[in-house]
Amino acid sequence: MKQSQLFVPTLKEAPKDAEVKSHKLMARAGLIKQTAAGIYTYLPLGLRVIKNIEAIIREEHDQRGCSELLMPALQPRDLWEESGRWGQYGPELMRLKDRKERDFCLGPTHEEVITAVVRDYIQSYKKLPLALYQIQTKFRDEMRPRFGLMRGREFIMKDLYTFSESRADLDAWYQTMKIAYTTIFNRCGLETKIVSSDTGQIGGDAADEFMVMSEVGEDTITYCDQCDYAANQEFSGLSEGDPCPNCEGTIQVAKGIEVGNIFKLGTKYSESMNAYFTDRSGHRQPVIMGCYGLGISRTLMAAVEQHSTDDSLLWPKAITPFHVHVIPVKMTPENEDAILSLYNNLSRTYTVLLDDRDERVGVKFKDADLIGLPYRVVLGKDFKDGLVEFTDRHTAETRLVAVTDLPDLLLL
Amino acid sequence: MKQSQLFVPTLKEAPKDAEVKSHKLMARAGLIKQTAAGIYTYLPLGLRVIKNIEAIIREEHDQRGCSELLMPALQPRDLWEESGRWGQYGPELMRLKDRKERDFCLGPTHEEVITAVVRDYIQSYKKLPLALYQIQTKFRDEMRPRFGLMRGREFIMKDLYTFSESRADLDAWYQTMKIAYTTIFNRCGLETKIVSSDTGQIGGDAADEFMVMSEVGEDTITYCDQCDYAANQEFSGLSEGDPCPNCEGTIQVAKGIEVGNIFKLGTKYSESMNAYFTDRSGHRQPVIMGCYGLGISRTLMAAVEQHSTDDSLLWPKAITPFHVHVIPVKMTPENEDAILSLYNNLSRTYTVLLDDRDERVGVKFKDADLIGLPYRVVLGKDFKDGLVEFTDRHTAETRLVAVTDLPDLLLL
Repeated sequence: MKQSQLFVPTLKEAPKDAEVKSHKLMARAGLIKQTAAGIYTYLPLGLRVIKNIEAIIREEHDQRGCSELLMPALQPRDLWEESGRWGQYGPELMRLKDRKERDFCLGPTHEEVITAVVRDYIQSYKKLPLALYQIQTKFRDEMRPRFGLMRGREFIMKDLYTFSESRADLDAWYQTMKIAYTTIFNRCGLETKIVSSDTGQIGGDAADEFMVMSEVGEDTITYCDQCDYAANQEFSGLSEGDPCPNCEGTIQVAKGIEVGNIFKLGTKYSESMNAYFTDRSGHRQPVIMGCYGLGISRTLMAAVEQHSTDDSLLWPKAITPFHVHVIPVKMTPENEDAILSLYNNLSRTYTVLLDDRDERVGVKFKDADLIGLPYRVVLGKDFKDGLVEFTDRHTAETRLVAVTDLPDLLLL
Repeated sequence: MKQSQLFVPTLKEAPKDAEVKSHKLMARAGLIKQTAAGIYTYLPLGLRVIKNIEAIIREEHDQRGCSELLMPALQPRDLWEESGRWGQYGPELMRLKDRKERDFCLGPTHEEVITAVVRDYIQSYKKLPLALYQIQTKFRDEMRPRFGLMRGREFIMKDLYTFSESRADLDAWYQTMKIAYTTIFNRCGLETKIVSSDTGQIGGDAADEFMVMSEVGEDTITYCDQCDYAANQEFSGLSEGDPCPNCEGTIQVAKGIEVGNIFKLGTKYSESMNAYFTDRSGHRQPVIMGCYGLGISRTLMAAVEQHSTDDSLLWPKAITPFHVHVIPVKMTPENEDAILSLYNNLSRTYTVLLDDRDERVGVKFKDADLIGLPYRVVLGKDFKDGLVEFTDRHTAETRLVAVTDLPDLLLL
């Protein structure tokens, strides 16, 4: 892609309301732009990362037997009355009336809709298990939207719902998705800790959260320094230095960014919304449900928080908006053909951003640091001799190499 | 994909409110399910077609120098006050208040948001032209939602906005996008007519609509039987049999489904929202805008309307949810390995739906007709001898062929 055609409005200064590094950088690098408090536009570079994260999520879900669908944002009140949540959910639920004064909400989560979608179908154990997910825009009217995409009011999530005939099958899905989530976050360049938590407004029998450890995280995590015990502090009630349950260790406290949460819903929604099936012995039973959320816009934010300094970004290769940044020091009528030929050749194998703008090279380099692609190829005075300046930004090593050697150096 | 894992809730009877063929079929084939009036869930098969249409749209936009971004659904009132549309837009605009009583609307269109996104950036002619599009969920509170996805209240659209330094550049983009749209619809298996229309609530200087001729269309089109004149009847004011402007022909009248519309906005939004740039001679000018909408969910509906009979669908190859339907008459422990091996082999090149359900073959065939994949491979009594029943549903030809000949017959 030619940078002159792409819309990358880099900024010298971060917006005043940006408090944390990732928010400042995302605004400065032209990844996002605020449209209202807690409501953002994903600019082309930011959207490319979102799409890469989504592709990883789809792969890891599809190969585990999950199917994708897409539910609406607008949800009618009657479904939420069935589950009992219309009256329970607080002001985070954005409500509106249509032109005929019927009540709707903007979905923060889709347990009601998915249960209504499947309940006529799953009348027999033969139709189970069923695992359905969507990637969709969700809404939550946060009291204090802040930290950019961390606590937004309109955000992108993947939510999966499983329907099982037995607790054992639910447990198996829960285990499968724990592994899937850990894999997804690792592929996105994030290490996560699995943390026990309470079930909150979703309800159900058990819940775990996926946390990226970070000083700007909003959740407090208690974990053991000697075993794999980890729990949200609100849930555990433990403090730093407490003895750890069931082991010799001591409780540590840290902050975390919640990027995923999974719930054993059990029969809360199937009982209230009448999603029953006939089991193998001919009895009617409420179907046993699980739900599994993954914050996509928040994963983007956490990746920026982890993979950046104050003035530059460095994308993990699996989610980078482009692999290679090709930067001609100067484009002239003499070298333009050679530059375009190099660009076209690399574009066959890699995603390439060509800085073809009529800007000073200092501006180009500053923007390139902000944009943060893993490989940089600078076309300078030796380009006429077939040599380019190559930087693998993950090793920070720069050297003069032959154009023909580039394919051996660009490792994905 | 194994059909037992996919959620395809086919129905014997269409829902009572389904009036037109495409709506009936889409519900019966398990493509969509209504969640509220005019609000639908896209089930896995329907979503796969949507994704295929989206991929075609992205290709045809990206290759013409357009960049994708993603704007929010929630739009603050202040932007709509700037353009003057907050007071002008009728009850189709869904409005809501946040927890602090601030007004928002759910975007039916994004002229205000995109203008606010780019106006700080496009301060010089050097940043122009700029062409930005999104694929996004939109909202319009229709008085009478009907015909399934045809007149829905929550729907999927592609909207492109162009920013030019001159009328000539806008005209060039307008021409480019006319060609792009015609190509996109053709690739989706739809023939469209370009029809002059008025600019309505979007505003601007000129507008054209892309119409799929259909008896269930809601728009009335007047067109000439001898030249390429075509206009929305409301706009032309002409009737059947009228002489045609500027030629010897006669006006014909037909119905059409509007699947796209393009507008020369001119400076309506840039003047009211202060999106000015410095031109080549150093003068400040309002940027000249165009906008280009394409209804993705409606394109899906129009494709079903065009490519179906009352009881069966037949997908155009470019957007079909899967290429090949593999239907074993009966899966047994003896033939299961051979069936899975055939399925895995074909899956390397094609998207394949394997009907591995424990159902009678009559049920499988009926569902297969509804689902409407272009190629069908039935594994019957001759499968043990390496022979399968192959149907190219576009030619309706069925014959017994060797498994090894399948790759020569499956043409994409």
